Amino acid sequence: MGSPLTSWNDGAVKRAIVDFVSRVTTPGGPDFIPAAERIATFDNDGTLWCEQPMQVQVFFLIDRIKHLAAQDPSIGERQPFKALLEHDLEALHDQGKQAIFELGFAAHAGMTDEAFDLLARDWLASATHPRLGRLFTSCVYQPQLELLDYLRQHGFKTFIVSGGGLGLMRAYAERAYGIPPEQVIGSSVKTRFEVENGRVQLMRSAELGSFDDREVKAQNIGLHIGRRPILAFGNSDGDLAMLRYTKTGPGLRLALLVHHDDAAREFVYDREFRLSPLAEALDKAAEYGITLVSMTRDWRVVFAQTRRLGSE
Amino acid sequence: MGSPLTSWNDGAVKRAIVDFVSRVTTPGGPDFIPAAERIATFDNDGTLWCEQPMQVQVFFLIDRIKHLAAQDPSIGERQPFKALLEHDLEALHDQGKQAIFELGFAAHAGMTDEAFDLLARDWLASATHPRLGRLFTSCVYQPQLELLDYLRQHGFKTFIVSGGGLGLMRAYAERAYGIPPEQVIGSSVKTRFEVENGRVQLMRSAELGSFDDREVKAQNIGLHIGRRPILAFGNSDGDLAMLRYTKTGPGLRLALLVHHDDAAREFVYDREFRLSPLAEALDKAAEYGITLVSMTRDWRVVFAQTRRLGSE
Repeated sequence: MGSPLTSWNDGAVKRAIVDFVSRVTTPGGPDFIPAAERIATFDNDGTLWCEQPMQVQVFFLIDRIKHLAAQDPSIGERQPFKALLEHDLEALHDQGKQAIFELGFAAHAGMTDEAFDLLARDWLASATHPRLGRLFTSCVYQPQLELLDYLRQHGFKTFIVSGGGLGLMRAYAERAYGIPPEQVIGSSVKTRFEVENGRVQLMRSAELGSFDDREVKAQNIGLHIGRRPILAFGNSDGDLAMLRYTKTGPGLRLALLVHHDDAAREFVYDREFRLSPLAEALDKAAEYGITLVSMTRDWRVVFAQTRRLGSE
Repeated sequence: MGSPLTSWNDGAVKRAIVDFVSRVTTPGGPDFIPAAERIATFDNDGTLWCEQPMQVQVFFLIDRIKHLAAQDPSIGERQPFKALLEHDLEALHDQGKQAIFELGFAAHAGMTDEAFDLLARDWLASATHPRLGRLFTSCVYQPQLELLDYLRQHGFKTFIVSGGGLGLMRAYAERAYGIPPEQVIGSSVKTRFEVENGRVQLMRSAELGSFDDREVKAQNIGLHIGRRPILAFGNSDGDLAMLRYTKTGPGLRLALLVHHDDAAREFVYDREFRLSPLAEALDKAAEYGITLVSMTRDWRVVFAQTRRLGSE
């Protein structure tokens, strides 16, 4: 099937991926795994697309809160909205997780699932990365698009398992990554069942469903997928539980971690990125058998050239 | 593709199904729906397999509690365990939902997800319906197997959305119905993330995750699938919310309800079945545009002849 993974440089990491896929798909081989059990889970922010200077979800939050504050100026005068509107992420971080949830509820709740989907699609159609000068939906990593395709061509089912808001991811994951809504797992609000003019609607409420980070990622894989992945890919400490859950299953497994070490083409960060640090996972990667992917060394190309959503 | 739905009698219901599938899959037609949006959701107990004289989940509960009471006789002396072991479902029903949960936790929690899966498969391999004299896994409805296949052949993705315990359903749904674990939604316990001897495990805990019945079915579809189904099939009031959620979406939709009216080949029941009555949904079917399926009139055959799991 031609040359797979052309945006990956030849080297130990690419060989590990190709070798793994070859072994689990060789019928009769000692490591063969039936197609139905070839579950691959990917973190999103920093793994499938860019998360610097902050996650796209935060840009979305800011735009939504700006919009709400324009309608009701009192919103902008109180915390945590004030810190967000002033882009003071340190102050926001210091207000703790509950402040993040409060912002999330303001931005993500108070409307139906379907209304939120339209709103998210509308935002994604024009929202642009401030430094890279391209649509956020074009900030996806070309090597990962090729890897997702490569895995699916070999019978894998690919999932996103991300701390990001579920509704925003579902609004573009199918077009950007070929991952349908039912294969996206993320942080969620609860919904209320409502009947309006005889029509049933799911109303998004200001109540946390799940904050899909760290151990919860593994727990949500159990709930939503019901099978331990055989391959998982992350980029931060928030992914470590998922990577270990994957790697410590029986038989051959592959766990990978993107290391953002590419100042020329993307960004350089790990431990100091407060929103989503890579520290423990970096220190323990060797011990846990996790394969480190160096953006500089392993990726021939970083960003997708084609703006997959641009044709819409 | 030969003659589809051969176990369905010719008549208005079969015509409605074939006509619906034809219309949503005709490219360029006014009712065309892209394959990715062809989501079909099925209740399990009473819709895909037999639920009389009580749900298979209850037989499983009884066997599990018997097993636990054999190890610790004090269990059998206290409620709600006593009522269950005496098959006194009325007494059990009177103890309310919390009693059911307590039984469910005793039977379904206290072990890892993977250990529970083995236990469930082991039970299903020999557990037999007391009146029908066949394995429970052979109590699946042949017309529904054909419908599931027919829908999948036409690009539909088929899901189970059931009040039954998620782990027990996942232990046989793929082999019995061709529905993989990640397309099964059900009632669940929460899990704990645990590391034992360096190995990550999801430990099933005595805490309710979700009781997947009534409105929660629609809410869980939103959470797990993220798309409103275009076809839904149920058999009780517990399915009414899902059927209405499906039917009140835009465009062509089909909602169906099995009516158990076949004394000769299966069972006759609706309003009086306290564990899962069919009353409001029956009364409102016409108003809500729900298609009633009469087992007597519409199914040429009831049970699958081949024991799909017997070959294992």
